[in-house]
Amino acid sequence: MDNKKIKNLLTSLKDGTVSVENALRKLKHLPYEDISFAKVDHHRHLRQGVPEVIFASGKTDEQVLTIARAMHKKSGAFLITKASKKIYRSLKIKGAVFYPDSGIIAVGEEKKKAGNVLVLTAGTSDIPAAEEAAVTASFLGSRIETVYDVGVAGLHRLMDSSDQIKKARVIVVAAGMEGALPSVVGGMTDKPIVAVPTSTGYGTSLGGLTALFAMLNSCVARIAVMNIDNGFGAGCRAHKINTLAGNE
Amino acid sequence: MDNKKIKNLLTSLKDGTVSVENALRKLKHLPYEDISFAKVDHHRHLRQGVPEVIFASGKTDEQVLTIARAMHKKSGAFLITKASKKIYRSLKIKGAVFYPDSGIIAVGEEKKKAGNVLVLTAGTSDIPAAEEAAVTASFLGSRIETVYDVGVAGLHRLMDSSDQIKKARVIVVAAGMEGALPSVVGGMTDKPIVAVPTSTGYGTSLGGLTALFAMLNSCVARIAVMNIDNGFGAGCRAHKINTLAGNE
Amino acid sequence: MDNKKIKNLLTSLKDGTVSVENALRKLKHLPYEDISFAKVDHHRHLRQGVPEVIFASGKTDEQVLTIARAMHKKSGAFLITKASKKIYRSLKIKGAVFYPDSGIIAVGEEKKKAGNVLVLTAGTSDIPAAEEAAVTASFLGSRIETVYDVGVAGLHRLMDSSDQIKKARVIVVAAGMEGALPSVVGGMTDKPIVAVPTSTGYGTSLGGLTALFAMLNSCVARIAVMNIDNGFGAGCRAHKINTLAGNE
Amino acid sequence: MDNKKIKNLLTSLKDGTVSVENALRKLKHLPYEDISFAKVDHHRHLRQGVPEVIFASGKTDEQVLTIARAMHKKSGAFLITKASKKIYRSLKIKGAVFYPDSGIIAVGEEKKKAGNVLVLTAGTSDIPAAEEAAVTASFLGSRIETVYDVGVAGLHRLMDSSDQIKKARVIVVAAGMEGALPSVVGGMTDKPIVAVPTSTGYGTSLGGLTALFAMLNSCVARIAVMNIDNGFGAGCRAHKINTLAGNE
Amino acid sequence: MDNKKIKNLLTSLKDGTVSVENALRKLKHLPYEDISFAKVDHHRHLRQGVPEVIFASGKTDEQVLTIARAMHKKSGAFLITKASKKIYRSLKIKGAVFYPDSGIIAVGEEKKKAGNVLVLTAGTSDIPAAEEAAVTASFLGSRIETVYDVGVAGLHRLMDSSDQIKKARVIVVAAGMEGALPSVVGGMTDKPIVAVPTSTGYGTSLGGLTALFAMLNSCVARIAVMNIDNGFGAGCRAHKINTLAGNE
Amino acid sequence: MDNKKIKNLLTSLKDGTVSVENALRKLKHLPYEDISFAKVDHHRHLRQGVPEVIFASGKTDEQVLTIARAMHKKSGAFLITKASKKIYRSLKIKGAVFYPDSGIIAVGEEKKKAGNVLVLTAGTSDIPAAEEAAVTASFLGSRIETVYDVGVAGLHRLMDSSDQIKKARVIVVAAGMEGALPSVVGGMTDKPIVAVPTSTGYGTSLGGLTALFAMLNSCVARIAVMNIDNGFGAGCRAHKINTLAGNE
Amino acid sequence: MDNKKIKNLLTSLKDGTVSVENALRKLKHLPYEDISFAKVDHHRHLRQGVPEVIFASGKTDEQVLTIARAMHKKSGAFLITKASKKIYRSLKIKGAVFYPDSGIIAVGEEKKKAGNVLVLTAGTSDIPAAEEAAVTASFLGSRIETVYDVGVAGLHRLMDSSDQIKKARVIVVAAGMEGALPSVVGGMTDKPIVAVPTSTGYGTSLGGLTALFAMLNSCVARIAVMNIDNGFGAGCRAHKINTLAGNE
Amino acid sequence: MDNKKIKNLLTSLKDGTVSVENALRKLKHLPYEDISFAKVDHHRHLRQGVPEVIFASGKTDEQVLTIARAMHKKSGAFLITKASKKIYRSLKIKGAVFYPDSGIIAVGEEKKKAGNVLVLTAGTSDIPAAEEAAVTASFLGSRIETVYDVGVAGLHRLMDSSDQIKKARVIVVAAGMEGALPSVVGGMTDKPIVAVPTSTGYGTSLGGLTALFAMLNSCVARIAVMNIDNGFGAGCRAHKINTLAGNE
Repeated sequence: MDNKKIKNLLTSLKDGTVSVENALRKLKHLPYEDISFAKVDHHRHLRQGVPEVIFASGKTDEQVLTIARAMHKKSGAFLITKASKKIYRSLKIKGAVFYPDSGIIAVGEEKKKAGNVLVLTAGTSDIPAAEEAAVTASFLGSRIETVYDVGVAGLHRLMDSSDQIKKARVIVVAAGMEGALPSVVGGMTDKPIVAVPTSTGYGTSLGGLTALFAMLNSCVARIAVMNIDNGFGAGCRAHKINTLAGNE
Repeated sequence: MDNKKIKNLLTSLKDGTVSVENALRKLKHLPYEDISFAKVDHHRHLRQGVPEVIFASGKTDEQVLTIARAMHKKSGAFLITKASKKIYRSLKIKGAVFYPDSGIIAVGEEKKKAGNVLVLTAGTSDIPAAEEAAVTASFLGSRIETVYDVGVAGLHRLMDSSDQIKKARVIVVAAGMEGALPSVVGGMTDKPIVAVPTSTGYGTSLGGLTALFAMLNSCVARIAVMNIDNGFGAGCRAHKINTLAGNE
Repeated sequence: MDNKKIKNLLTSLKDGTVSVENALRKLKHLPYEDISFAKVDHHRHLRQGVPEVIFASGKTDEQVLTIARAMHKKSGAFLITKASKKIYRSLKIKGAVFYPDSGIIAVGEEKKKAGNVLVLTAGTSDIPAAEEAAVTASFLGSRIETVYDVGVAGLHRLMDSSDQIKKARVIVVAAGMEGALPSVVGGMTDKPIVAVPTSTGYGTSLGGLTALFAMLNSCVARIAVMNIDNGFGAGCRAHKINTLAGNE
Repeated sequence: MDNKKIKNLLTSLKDGTVSVENALRKLKHLPYEDISFAKVDHHRHLRQGVPEVIFASGKTDEQVLTIARAMHKKSGAFLITKASKKIYRSLKIKGAVFYPDSGIIAVGEEKKKAGNVLVLTAGTSDIPAAEEAAVTASFLGSRIETVYDVGVAGLHRLMDSSDQIKKARVIVVAAGMEGALPSVVGGMTDKPIVAVPTSTGYGTSLGGLTALFAMLNSCVARIAVMNIDNGFGAGCRAHKINTLAGNE
Repeated sequence: MDNKKIKNLLTSLKDGTVSVENALRKLKHLPYEDISFAKVDHHRHLRQGVPEVIFASGKTDEQVLTIARAMHKKSGAFLITKASKKIYRSLKIKGAVFYPDSGIIAVGEEKKKAGNVLVLTAGTSDIPAAEEAAVTASFLGSRIETVYDVGVAGLHRLMDSSDQIKKARVIVVAAGMEGALPSVVGGMTDKPIVAVPTSTGYGTSLGGLTALFAMLNSCVARIAVMNIDNGFGAGCRAHKINTLAGNE
Repeated sequence: MDNKKIKNLLTSLKDGTVSVENALRKLKHLPYEDISFAKVDHHRHLRQGVPEVIFASGKTDEQVLTIARAMHKKSGAFLITKASKKIYRSLKIKGAVFYPDSGIIAVGEEKKKAGNVLVLTAGTSDIPAAEEAAVTASFLGSRIETVYDVGVAGLHRLMDSSDQIKKARVIVVAAGMEGALPSVVGGMTDKPIVAVPTSTGYGTSLGGLTALFAMLNSCVARIAVMNIDNGFGAGCRAHKINTLAGNE
Repeated sequence: MDNKKIKNLLTSLKDGTVSVENALRKLKHLPYEDISFAKVDHHRHLRQGVPEVIFASGKTDEQVLTIARAMHKKSGAFLITKASKKIYRSLKIKGAVFYPDSGIIAVGEEKKKAGNVLVLTAGTSDIPAAEEAAVTASFLGSRIETVYDVGVAGLHRLMDSSDQIKKARVIVVAAGMEGALPSVVGGMTDKPIVAVPTSTGYGTSLGGLTALFAMLNSCVARIAVMNIDNGFGAGCRAHKINTLAGNE
Repeated sequence: MDNKKIKNLLTSLKDGTVSVENALRKLKHLPYEDISFAKVDHHRHLRQGVPEVIFASGKTDEQVLTIARAMHKKSGAFLITKASKKIYRSLKIKGAVFYPDSGIIAVGEEKKKAGNVLVLTAGTSDIPAAEEAAVTASFLGSRIETVYDVGVAGLHRLMDSSDQIKKARVIVVAAGMEGALPSVVGGMTDKPIVAVPTSTGYGTSLGGLTALFAMLNSCVARIAVMNIDNGFGAGCRAHKINTLAGNE
């Protein structure tokens, strides 16, 4: 359930077409629904500017499916992240889309796209996190462009993307290994950058910690950094900033 | 030298009041100035949306002062971060202001303030990072409000700030120890949040790493995190987002 | 074998219905039984206030079953933690109960429940640790209530549990990721809190270390922290504190 | 201001000797007092069961003294932890007591002592944390006994303390280095144990992390662990548990 | 090939029954044999006081078997550590013994046993490392006693082993979790102690690092510590010390 | 496509046999080819002195094969590292060679070998990294010698390789566990040494970090260190240095 | 008070020159003496085979001096480690010797020296730990030889010490940085080796952790490792092993 | 004493102007000189290709001066690294030069310079490590160019150095914080790169570990990495590679 529906409810209340008692009951009912092992939070979208989402990893398939069905009944539109193909197949919700690289499932996405979010990756292995960010921001209503595999070892490939960098309102950069790409992009533009370290690499990549720490130490001071592989958070944040700059 | 001055130069060129040769020379001269141990980068403001700044820690006082004087001649307005009172006293630049809690020096700040950046701290010991963020964003042109010492152990104090949270366009949250404040603020609002972990605490606070990791793991997925004690970066980022939402 | 049986033995000795020699032999026999690869410690309950327990992880199934049978003969009531369904099926002890979320097996539980232990979790993925704590404390004789999925990103869900918080004598809080829930609960009540960090999360959650360190750094100074995923220990501790406040 | 004063206020309201308006004003005034860089929280004692306290480390001396004076006016009784002798000398509050080993200052302590909290240390170097715990619990109203330097390398010294262990309602154990003492004490008694790892040691003691981790891994599962050197928290917790068992 | 055979060769040389040329050739041939991917070092026993050994983990089964056959031809007696049952089955060497708990294979053991090495474990899960130590020291010629599951949570079980501790010339102590057992044993006796931290435990046991660091920080200063799960090294060392004290 | 082909193109341009437009188009086309999820960088060899390479780990088999086919069409010669036998079988490129120890695939290698690169390992388990280095340097045109299993526990084995050390122009040393071999080799020769720490070992080998740190701390100051298990990088570097010293 | 005095007491008891009551009182009195902040343990020497010792670091000077005087009265012979020159000057005990490199103070040393302990260091900076080991073992009665600065970068220097290595019964090796010396020495001899990692080095030496981990991973499996800079423990251990091999 | 002097000695021997006995004595005398706490190694230059050097940090001033004087007598030319101005002043050796940024002292440098080593830094704070590398390589005979403060946040500054990059035979890159500069330089050129991570930065720079790990993870695989702040090693290595490519 999104902002608009609640506004309508409140307008109806003001207009007299809904009684105070009914409005109160509906609103009180909204916040969450208790399904014993999880409280489905139908208001989170309103309060926090993130979509309704189920983080599948760490939950049993059964739990994911039960929560998903509860969400589907109420709001119709939500995401499942870090999901398996098996969950997608058991879901049986019409119109649900599964993105196999990142394991994200989008249900009921129908927002008009606006603005411009550019998603870059340093390498091919960073695509899962990038795709999660792209799908999330698109789900929330952002127009997306993606340019993959433009790491700093071949700067000319990055230079070829300068037009897309100029057009973007906000740039998501996913990179593992030495995590240098956000710094280099940040040296080329003053656009807000959301950096996503990925667990790509081996040895001293330390599962993404090296990329994370490198990004936090960027000489381009204003880069914002997300948790390792947290494409979902990057998508939410990028969309938020994208919409701050207008709705076109 | 800021955006406006360059725009004027280019307009003058277009108007014919400046010859192509002169414009070229001036522009070419701008990027940086080589003072042997440092390249003063007068274009960074344009390219990256950050103020001209000298990070004093790790440089000798003599180096800081030499770079500062070079900057002062060209652009008139810049910051020095993590500076000592001794540097401030040796600087002898009229109008320079020293903020003792954070050790930031602002030279030539005169921007009109617009928008609304709210800076919160969990405790008194987080004020240095918060002040660095506030002075930086203000220097760049953001209107600032600060509310200090509203950590999660006394939620009612935070609740009393809900009006200020509602008015803000972007919120900077500085917190050390368990770093929980950004999550709680993020649960109350959908405003963009810039989280600054601080090195406040002892034992397993690990010099700020615990607060950093906690913020990166926030259940409020869209929080952007800066390096430990990086108030400067938070100020740059908050200002950028603040201006995306308009210039009032 | 529990406190009561030993008291009875000693009373019988005093009453003359048991000879000194027999009492001595029985008591001497009690402490432990040597089954070559493990010493079954029938006195630990007395000495330490924890139930007889087999920590299954790191033992072969065969070892677990042999120890379990030895315990079953002597005392009739014990727990097996971190056990698999396979162990449960091979166990073939009447009345044994298997809890699949946490993998705990309770044998011979029949204590009258008293007092009030409240078990909270931040998310659905924290339920295994919470269930282990709840089953353990209940086995020892505590009355239990559980409220799951009330993390800090949705404070109103936590607020709805304030009645249960008021009624509780001691509160167990299981949380992974940023581990902020114990601080927030601790800001709402002066009840003793036992915090269990869980290995829920990814990236910088570091397998639960971030939640652990955050809890140890809580601005609510008096929170007691257990090892990562140590629901068993939390249940023992919560029961102990629960009974200190009376036996109703 | 403690529980009793507020109860009196509410009784006066009920009795009619205080008007609703006055009661409201007084209560509303209570929660905290804004002194710009810190919000003095006069209700925390009520809400959280900890004393009013100023954590001096990380604050300037001036800040500590300003907060201390504000606290002194309102409630008369509070603690300052990790304070220097210099702060104590500048404080000039009659009856303030300074404990040099731990750097704790107690102001206005006058509670009647009840129950029994035993504070043990493994070595002489663990006394600072132990003293902080002892002074805090005593300040809150617990009767205290201390036995220092009874580490596991000389078990007979610990055995000589078995009478004190038997009399105690709760035991605080401070230990650095290998942090083994809580396990050994926990093997001797079923009393609740609050373990405080200390930063005593060198090399792989890792500033107390080794003792912390050892305590969290104790084979005596029910031990509750505090942050490194957090004697204050241990004192609060020990007092809480002590009072659960009655007021004698 | 062991010390005795070489002594015989040299005696034969001195006696004139072997020519200098032949002795030289044999000795030169001895040191190692190049089988391309490994140099089988037949002299290591002489030089270092360790048995000929193949560390199977990290080698392919094929490599282990090839090296084993080369060793078998020359010396007849050697160990394979961290081996699988599958390797044992493929080995097909008469008299080879496989110990399933630790995965150690002993080939050609026939030394007379002397002295007294006591091997203790804190728990059942520490048996693999302990067994590796026991088999190694026995293979080298030490008489072995083992007492398992005598951790510090039940000190009386350890006390019951005091006779065995008194008889031992050197004590190997294997313990995971908090690693406290070597300290407690070290407080009871002045015998040399070889401590083996094990990877038993979970959460902050950090795969054995906590036990390792605790042992290195033991208040009983003279404890010698091996790598995590390095039962083989502990067995070598214990045997060496055992033989220093005589050959009975 | 290598240096020579480009030189030919440019000469053709100068000779007039190729028009400027055609040359431009070809050159512009060269740098990389966009196959959506990866930009195949045909110029990297020129710019960086490394062969065209696909790092298979972290990519799907499908992605590896698509990139491989694109590379095969353009340049004919490239490497795939950390590949599985399954990829090799699906590749179906004539002349491709698969090295099973290291999982490296070499396609189109036909360079004349020159100079002398010596590759040493401390143990048998270090061979995968060593083989990756050897195959890479050979692919680039270096003559290779390998001596495996000459760790510091048997110095005489290393001493027997002194002739090979004397002949080498550059020495690659792969070692895990305590990582001491580069220091010892470095004490014997002034040849450039490229050290590759490997993930061989267990417990405190920390997946190769201990060997890495030991090598970085070598008392032989001039040793260059690669990432853990990075045989490919070591091979590139060794070849580069090898060719600096001439083309024989 | 050492072994001999107690033996005399017991003999006197047997001879009838001391009554059972007196012997009991004396023995009971012996174990430790309570000086409030420390229990001076006069029996530890007997029980643990270590000298009476005060670890000065982490204690106030006043505490060290008080404990030292109590020890001086009873036993006459003890050590103070990690002490400052200031403590030595305030001590004013005749015959006390101060070793400035390691900060060890020896009081009342007069044992006859026997056996042979060789103490090696890799560099000049490792001398403090080595000296602490040498003074401790000498104090306990071991004959000592020291050879300093024989690190692996100059193997010929180590080779020149081969005579001393042959004569030694046990070898203490102190090394920082990459910690390779014990492996190399262990490859040359089968003597028991006690390795002491030191905090010498910078960057990735990590305060001695790298040397420690390298030693624990030594390919010479039987090396025993002490805590970082723990020369005292190494001295105790080396002496113990030295005396196992006889009293000459 | 350098290569040339030894060659002369050997030629004299061949020429008959020096007797075999005298040559032997001189050569035998050369390797090192025992000054009790240090063995001055006059042959290291020959064997390892590094200059004679004293690493001052961790030694007392007295030790540094004694070793320096011994070196001065024999060879005349050596370096002291990480030295203080105080040591320099006490040294009183004619012609010694002190470089205050890095604390390096060069004695007797007089080599002819050849080749071309380029030393780059990312920022002003990286100059100490860079200067140490530059002085060392110059001392050994390399021609040096330095370009400081060309970090990735201002790529155009780096682009301006492309001529110098083209001329260089080997490039030393010193960078702290995110350590991205070597990757970017490596993407521009195929010259050998020696990367020196520096301890510049704060928070998650972790004293240089982040820069180190980032460099080891560089997508430009062939970069060689030194220990944190190890400018000396980088200088040795760069000189070695520089001379491989000829003596001009």
